[in-house]
Amino acid sequence: MVDKTAVHRSVFFVSDGTAITAETLGHSLLAQFPTVDFEIHIIPYVDSEERAMDVVQEINKCAIRDGAPPLVFDTLVDPLVRDVINTANAINLDVFEGLISKIETELNVKASPQVGNAHSSVDSENYKSRIDAVHYALDNDDGAKTRHYDMADLILIGVSRSGKTPTSIYLALQFGIRVANYPITEEDLDDNRLPKVLKEHKKKLFGLMIEPERLVAIRSERKANSRYASFQQCQMELRAIQGIYISEGIPYLNVSEMSIEEISTRILQTTGLKRRIS
Amino acid sequence: MVDKTAVHRSVFFVSDGTAITAETLGHSLLAQFPTVDFEIHIIPYVDSEERAMDVVQEINKCAIRDGAPPLVFDTLVDPLVRDVINTANAINLDVFEGLISKIETELNVKASPQVGNAHSSVDSENYKSRIDAVHYALDNDDGAKTRHYDMADLILIGVSRSGKTPTSIYLALQFGIRVANYPITEEDLDDNRLPKVLKEHKKKLFGLMIEPERLVAIRSERKANSRYASFQQCQMELRAIQGIYISEGIPYLNVSEMSIEEISTRILQTTGLKRRIS
Repeated sequence: MVDKTAVHRSVFFVSDGTAITAETLGHSLLAQFPTVDFEIHIIPYVDSEERAMDVVQEINKCAIRDGAPPLVFDTLVDPLVRDVINTANAINLDVFEGLISKIETELNVKASPQVGNAHSSVDSENYKSRIDAVHYALDNDDGAKTRHYDMADLILIGVSRSGKTPTSIYLALQFGIRVANYPITEEDLDDNRLPKVLKEHKKKLFGLMIEPERLVAIRSERKANSRYASFQQCQMELRAIQGIYISEGIPYLNVSEMSIEEISTRILQTTGLKRRIS
Repeated sequence: MVDKTAVHRSVFFVSDGTAITAETLGHSLLAQFPTVDFEIHIIPYVDSEERAMDVVQEINKCAIRDGAPPLVFDTLVDPLVRDVINTANAINLDVFEGLISKIETELNVKASPQVGNAHSSVDSENYKSRIDAVHYALDNDDGAKTRHYDMADLILIGVSRSGKTPTSIYLALQFGIRVANYPITEEDLDDNRLPKVLKEHKKKLFGLMIEPERLVAIRSERKANSRYASFQQCQMELRAIQGIYISEGIPYLNVSEMSIEEISTRILQTTGLKRRIS
């Protein structure tokens, strides 16, 4: 029996900043209720009582339409704004409440609420590290250049379309790590050994592996019914590259079932590479 | 008087997945205690009791060294693993506890804990949208090509080094939005009007503005003491481009004090562009 009242529910992520924190936490929580159809509303920059009143109206409209109070995750810091949001016809899941007071008690320090500041590190070294790393990843994408590999923290290798570029960029943006990437081509695989330019930087290499079925699907999006996207070709390339990883002792990861976040976090864990931003 | 017990404190973000949720929330909370020097330990993939026992040892070591129990933010789903973590000499800030039970009660649905799944959307349309958007952003970076602008959701414009590239990539990775970017050069500015190729896609344009002082600092990193990085040049370019934004009615944003997350979120808010991933 399906519980009718639980089939559909509106959810609001309300923040005085980007709403990234409320959204990240909210998604993790909602993922644990896979049978419920959540309608997500993301409301950033609620930084005045006027703006909060507009949001309350929106929440109340959904409450009437749904016949059930929406869930509201908020990370509001200003108590006046929060009080306005709390007047809505909603189930309020104040993310900070409780946790903040627990930390205050333990540290014996009062919190200094700073509106919307969780992600503003614009003046710091962090900002520069991220931007530099992003430009490094772009300049050194897809084996375009190899002369700056001295500056790389990591060089990702793998066959075409195994996820090197998005992973490089995520590592740059999120952690400030300088990542080059180099596609291992059929010619390299025929030689059955690493290209010379990679040999010189062997300690920085990390390999991506993927199941042939998944590679076929990804390559078919790009060039359907091509030799490039055929099962036989993909399987041959993957076997050859795995042979290289093993014989050269290069750490590698099967990324078939992983999101970009997971691939990136696993690489940090395996290599012990440190983030350049905090 | 500084409260000595609060000066330094170890903090652990413990997760059975990437630890991104614990870390995001934890950073937002800790930012409200700017006088405390937090030593951050990020521990992803704690997915067995054995691994949890190792973490407990690490926490206890810090507790002894610091002479104070560390703060532990966890987003563990498996109760057996969580029980092990709870044996540590620590202040446990269980992020999910409380919130999960509140949601269960309200929805009248039991949570189905799924370990480490908050960020795994590898098989879904989401994954494909993100990867496609990242490749689109790279292919259409820096005005390199303009013939695919029909497919763009958004075209960012601005003077050199005003933040177009990192913003394009963040919008792609995080929201699956297809963003091209085009640098407005001195020649364009001399003409005092939009290049023809941009005119054709005027509804998709969004402008980045920046304070001249900040642009000087950023450009000086790249080419110190050059005309390109001089205050006069930066100011001239910025005045000219603002004139174009205003006369052409192009929405724009001053990004001087903003992180990449903030710029991206503000752009979504201003343009009303919808995310392609959920």
